[in-house]
Amino acid sequence: MTEPTYVVGHQQPDTDTICSALAYARLKQEQGTAAVAARAGDVNPETEFVLDRWDVDAPELLEDAAGEQLILVDHNEYSQTVTGARDAEVVEIVDHHRIGDVETSSPILFRNEPVGSTATILTQLFDDADETITTQTAGLLLSGLLSDTVVLRSPTTTERDRTVAARLAEIADVDYESYGKELLMHKSKIGEKSPRE
Amino acid sequence: MTEPTYVVGHQQPDTDTICSALAYARLKQEQGTAAVAARAGDVNPETEFVLDRWDVDAPELLEDAAGEQLILVDHNEYSQTVTGARDAEVVEIVDHHRIGDVETSSPILFRNEPVGSTATILTQLFDDADETITTQTAGLLLSGLLSDTVVLRSPTTTERDRTVAARLAEIADVDYESYGKELLMHKSKIGEKSPRE
Ligand SMILES: [Mn+2]
Ligand SMILES: [Mn+2]
Ligand SMILES: [Mn+2]
Ligand SMILES: [Mn+2]
Repeated sequence: MTEPTYVVGHQQPDTDTICSALAYARLKQEQGTAAVAARAGDVNPETEFVLDRWDVDAPELLEDAAGEQLILVDHNEYSQTVTGARDAEVVEIVDHHRIGDVETSSPILFRNEPVGSTATILTQLFDDADETITTQTAGLLLSGLLSDTVVLRSPTTTERDRTVAARLAEIADVDYESYGKELLMHKSKIGEKSPRE
Repeated sequence: MTEPTYVVGHQQPDTDTICSALAYARLKQEQGTAAVAARAGDVNPETEFVLDRWDVDAPELLEDAAGEQLILVDHNEYSQTVTGARDAEVVEIVDHHRIGDVETSSPILFRNEPVGSTATILTQLFDDADETITTQTAGLLLSGLLSDTVVLRSPTTTERDRTVAARLAEIADVDYESYGKELLMHKSKIGEKSPRE
């Protein structure tokens, strides 16, 4: 049996992290890798709404990554990774943050770009690989993108995020402004659960 | 006056490092960046042959990078960078080695791929940007690729390197096997100058 490669985002996962893990695991599977989407913590209410909306199961919880093969998405720092990551083999990284402290012993794909979401970069990777983005995958990627960019209103939003969002919305068959508003409503519920209340 | 951004490879520069600095500086210039190709040390005899063959001046020697903006090509470790790099701002990295210890405070483009040369990745970046690769630039990129892969014979050579080499050879209007042999002849001259002799 082939050992799985876990595609996993950061601790305290947000929608971009979870949807990126799911979408990139799909792309890697299409390309013949035994990829499994994973998560490093609980799914938040916004992401739960997204998974319900697109009828997708949450990634499996990876409690200890020691000894595993990992693809890191949406982060590239050990302080944010899943438990055991320092004793795992990082075989790929796709991210949109500052360059952190993850080192490897072999050359790997590390694709970091200063755009609004990891989902934006993953959309490019589907295109580069000539792989079709299904309605469901488009829904996931769009959710990650709109969540991270606060529906294209954050200062991190780039022209490319706008172009990609329009395209994903078309594939997913949603209006991204109204879908984005729904997302934000569920994001605010995260606050309602905050310890201060 | 705009501050220049130096595109610089590793110390003890090889042909991939020098040709990548030259080619990527050209691409960045086309895209409106005040990019300047630089080098962190002396040009070796193989690279001198390449620069003569394609009638290109060597990049300027960057003696101290402190306070400068840097694009690192063909390396991503402080132990291999130009003097002063720890006190410079790294604004981009394009490489094909293991992931090293360079960290940044902001998100940047970091494109690392497990292929035979940095030149292979840069060819993709020209294509992604829809920028024409001139005969001269193709000659430089092909030289970096053939040098690093020992004319497509090193174990690091990938299918993509082969495809890219064929394409660059066509643009540069050379037979890559015979051009590669010429390169290797000049590479062997590096050994003749070694301290052991
Ligand atoms: Mn995130
Ligand atoms: Mn993100
Ligand atoms: Mn090199
Ligand atoms: Mn190289």
